[in-house]
Amino acid sequence: MNKIGIIGGLGPESTLEYYKRIIYGYRNITGDENYPQLYVNSVNMTEILSYLTNNDYEKLADVLTNEINKLKTIGADYVAIASNTPHVVIDELIKKLTIPLISIVEETCKFAKNNNLKKVLLTGTIFTMSNNFYKKAFDKYNIECIVPEDNEKKIIHNVIFPNLENGIIIEEDKLAFMKVCNNIIKEKNIDGIILGCTELPLMINQDDFDISVLDTMEIHIKSILEKLM
Amino acid sequence: MNKIGIIGGLGPESTLEYYKRIIYGYRNITGDENYPQLYVNSVNMTEILSYLTNNDYEKLADVLTNEINKLKTIGADYVAIASNTPHVVIDELIKKLTIPLISIVEETCKFAKNNNLKKVLLTGTIFTMSNNFYKKAFDKYNIECIVPEDNEKKIIHNVIFPNLENGIIIEEDKLAFMKVCNNIIKEKNIDGIILGCTELPLMINQDDFDISVLDTMEIHIKSILEKLM
Repeated sequence: MNKIGIIGGLGPESTLEYYKRIIYGYRNITGDENYPQLYVNSVNMTEILSYLTNNDYEKLADVLTNEINKLKTIGADYVAIASNTPHVVIDELIKKLTIPLISIVEETCKFAKNNNLKKVLLTGTIFTMSNNFYKKAFDKYNIECIVPEDNEKKIIHNVIFPNLENGIIIEEDKLAFMKVCNNIIKEKNIDGIILGCTELPLMINQDDFDISVLDTMEIHIKSILEKLM
Repeated sequence: MNKIGIIGGLGPESTLEYYKRIIYGYRNITGDENYPQLYVNSVNMTEILSYLTNNDYEKLADVLTNEINKLKTIGADYVAIASNTPHVVIDELIKKLTIPLISIVEETCKFAKNNNLKKVLLTGTIFTMSNNFYKKAFDKYNIECIVPEDNEKKIIHNVIFPNLENGIIIEEDKLAFMKVCNNIIKEKNIDGIILGCTELPLMINQDDFDISVLDTMEIHIKSILEKLM
């Protein structure tokens, strides 16, 4: 059994989901009486967000590399960052790291490809929507990635911060999120919506939309479980 | 801010509670916008239990020392084992470790002393009730520690394994637990009941008894938060 290292705390609510679903997911799938060993390095979200706000991507990549290397030092075979946003520096991380990183972005692209999606809508934090790391990855798979307009980005970001990030679900926020997305879906003929923030599935699921809803956290955890075994 | 390392997975349910309560506890108490960095090394409970079942305490102490040292290697200032049972080897661990360990047993004794308790009832897994590490610690504080009889131990242990350990709460089990404890409390004139298993507070709380209920997990987490700051 491989050992998985998780960079957590971005935010804490989704870290809890990753922990729970990896441990119980392993036991449910295998029927094994053992529990997987799991390392979680839960970092200071406020510090990480400050690098994003200041566009200091070099520092962000350095800090993440350092935190990931701690997990490597104590024996992790694979690492995963339990969050979408920090993947803004995924190219830099892959260059710097000497341990395989299970990327939520790459796994989501593969999932979309396997489901024959052609044009997806990206939702997530302002950082995830305003940078091109998802778009660049989807390009490789010949899938068009549509990003909301600036005013729409603001509405979506404000649904996540600060309430959803702290596990608080507000019905009004959910309706605002759905309205913005449904407008774009209709206008642009979208066939899949990317929940590109690991807190969004706390509020939104497949039942809320007529098109495919890509729960990046679920896709990521499924890939982690495959690597674990 | 100090960095805390947690040995988790014993079981996973209480690890989730430790994670959540340390992160949010820190923010609630300080009002700080930062999040504490937390390392969790979640181990294989089945392996740990096998050493206990085979009375292989030397191996248990070696394995725990090794896992704790991983947390030290990556920068933890203090470590804590998020479980009562492994404290059966607390004396050996303290001898072997070069990093301070926040012991759930020691912190519970201090709490009982501060609350002027004189005679407490120990509940927990069969391993915790059948070994003398709690009794030895309470002796130092001049508090009498009463342990259930063998048939009572079995009932209490079976309430924890396997259901409660996996987060499943059964009303019938709760009533059986309370009946056994109330008999001892009345007969022996007990003034405090030790929930000496970090899963017991998922089912039992202060409202269930007329005497003091010592939630070892809560006491432990409070001490961890003090060390963190």
